[in-house]
Amino acid sequence: MLPAAFNATPTPSLLIDAQRLDANIQRLRIRLAHLGVPLRPHVKTAKCVEVARRAIADQPGGIVVSTLAEAQWFFERGFQDITYAVGIAPQRLPAAAVLIRQGCRLKLLLDAAEMAREVAESGRRLAVKFPVLLELDSDGERAGFEPRSEQLLECARILDESDGTELAGVLTHAGGSYNHAGRDHIVGIAERERTSAAESAAMLWQAGLPCPIVSVGSTPTAMFGQDFSGVTEVRAGVYMFNDLVMAALGVCTADDIALSVLTTVIGHQRAKGWILIDAGWMALSRDRGPPALSMNDGYGVVCDALSGKPLRDLIVSSANQEHGIVTSRGGDTSIADLAPLGSRLRILPIHACATAGMHDSYGVVDGGGEIVERWRRMRGW
Amino acid sequence: MLPAAFNATPTPSLLIDAQRLDANIQRLRIRLAHLGVPLRPHVKTAKCVEVARRAIADQPGGIVVSTLAEAQWFFERGFQDITYAVGIAPQRLPAAAVLIRQGCRLKLLLDAAEMAREVAESGRRLAVKFPVLLELDSDGERAGFEPRSEQLLECARILDESDGTELAGVLTHAGGSYNHAGRDHIVGIAERERTSAAESAAMLWQAGLPCPIVSVGSTPTAMFGQDFSGVTEVRAGVYMFNDLVMAALGVCTADDIALSVLTTVIGHQRAKGWILIDAGWMALSRDRGPPALSMNDGYGVVCDALSGKPLRDLIVSSANQEHGIVTSRGGDTSIADLAPLGSRLRILPIHACATAGMHDSYGVVDGGGEIVERWRRMRGW
Repeated sequence: MLPAAFNATPTPSLLIDAQRLDANIQRLRIRLAHLGVPLRPHVKTAKCVEVARRAIADQPGGIVVSTLAEAQWFFERGFQDITYAVGIAPQRLPAAAVLIRQGCRLKLLLDAAEMAREVAESGRRLAVKFPVLLELDSDGERAGFEPRSEQLLECARILDESDGTELAGVLTHAGGSYNHAGRDHIVGIAERERTSAAESAAMLWQAGLPCPIVSVGSTPTAMFGQDFSGVTEVRAGVYMFNDLVMAALGVCTADDIALSVLTTVIGHQRAKGWILIDAGWMALSRDRGPPALSMNDGYGVVCDALSGKPLRDLIVSSANQEHGIVTSRGGDTSIADLAPLGSRLRILPIHACATAGMHDSYGVVDGGGEIVERWRRMRGW
Repeated sequence: MLPAAFNATPTPSLLIDAQRLDANIQRLRIRLAHLGVPLRPHVKTAKCVEVARRAIADQPGGIVVSTLAEAQWFFERGFQDITYAVGIAPQRLPAAAVLIRQGCRLKLLLDAAEMAREVAESGRRLAVKFPVLLELDSDGERAGFEPRSEQLLECARILDESDGTELAGVLTHAGGSYNHAGRDHIVGIAERERTSAAESAAMLWQAGLPCPIVSVGSTPTAMFGQDFSGVTEVRAGVYMFNDLVMAALGVCTADDIALSVLTTVIGHQRAKGWILIDAGWMALSRDRGPPALSMNDGYGVVCDALSGKPLRDLIVSSANQEHGIVTSRGGDTSIADLAPLGSRLRILPIHACATAGMHDSYGVVDGGGEIVERWRRMRGW
């Protein structure tokens, strides 16, 4: 009586479409290879060894992480070249030193002379030389030094002169690229990201300082940037999965989204045109996308469970902790029969990082209606 | 150099203030005792045995859960009277039957004749008698039968007549109470919640049907409802912790919020008046509160780490995955010195259920600047 697809799978459940994952990884790999710049995959989206291994194939092998716990977890699983791309807190330096002593090529990030002195002092005390990247704020929307600034130069000198630190380079992230739809707009943001980093590196070189790493990236700028000259690596993470934010930006289509949440229909309110599902915000996350994008996808786009294709214009328009309400964007109230009680649906995520963060593992599907593998996610700090 | 409070605690870290927790539990316990109605604590907020045990003290002992996984987890830890208050999916009936056979006094929820027949049929097949509550939609905003409706009566008859089910009663949740600030407004919502349930129960009795349980509740209506006559139990969960949504509704003050996220200052953007912290949406959640409330608390209110009291008018105004940006609500850009690099802050949650959902355990604090106990949370489905 119940449809066969994923019938034995408990819901809600996080799924990866392996074909789409591979295609997404391949797309950016080929693009950046043509542009002649290596990719450093950000593993904060997937937090998964199997995904990260696919992403670093044919790349130099380095990854980016968003927490020191991720660095430790991936290092224990064979990843050695790790950039920890969130400003270091002083309390984490002893644990960072342990990783470095164990052979991890860990790079830290900071954006203040005061912190540079703290890291230098800790490095001397702990008898390690911390490789440090200087963060640049290329869009005025985040942490980081003003590109090409005197403060940047001063901090670089502190790091270069200390026995406890090693100046590893500069890093910037054009996170503002998530707020503006359209290829042309993002091309411009990518160029500003590139020049901020490349010109800051040039300033350091002119001052006689080293700057071996010139790191830029975000999925939109990696996918649309036209020129990466002066840059030594591009970082991106969401591109592996894609999501509805990336689709709204024009970076991908809904058919490129490799991540979804499998859910079961638990009820209807026929008069209102509602389908109730067992995926609420605990399974989908509360992420609605950047307000500037004015998305109209609610908490996710509803797909056929087997094909993973959007089902009419259905979205999860509201979400409680453990159930969601599916409606038609166009207001069609006769949708209940599309999804009988007990049937399965798949929900495309608004923001892959956030939706994946609500789950402990991925069920891997290969086009059929069954899970063929289960991949673990790490979590916590 | 670093302040002593919580200096050995990794951040971000979820904290419970034990004194506030006990005071919150005591407040609702005394209130409902005066009104003569038992409390059935909802454990979906805390998902924690230690918290649930405190909440059921001096109560009949039953709890409410939002997933069958919670039911299993709490049953294994000694909780026997469990209401699973989200519409049952057919696929979960075999697991529910196992719990019942093991002695769990589990009650299921549904809101359609079609599902009632499915549960009845499964009960017969699995040789258990499923106790079933009928969900009522008391505010037109969720799942459930229209109160006092013919459809409700028809479904009640199906459950009463089948060997596979037992009509356990009616249940409603005035979730709309989260959208409207002010005591008077919520008193009205509570009365509608009560009459929806009590009059529906009366209709069933008049038809010769049993209705032993008449269950209502939400934290706002439990805290403000004036009359629970005709009701056999009140359900509430957030009241144990409270949060900024509850404060915005007038249900509590910021000083009653028992939950917070401990964070470390990792940077400043002095020209912009920003303090950067290592708590982003992965630690705080993306929950901004109900849009109807028009809250201005961003991703949380910033407090002194030791006292847990709000620090000036600081809020987490924006959040990336692993860092947040603290600003002054009033636009004061000279706040950086309030929180030096490496110092600790505590963030009060917008929505306790969502913030707690991002963590695996609670550090319990008793007023001092150290964690005195660690309590585990359950998660997953």
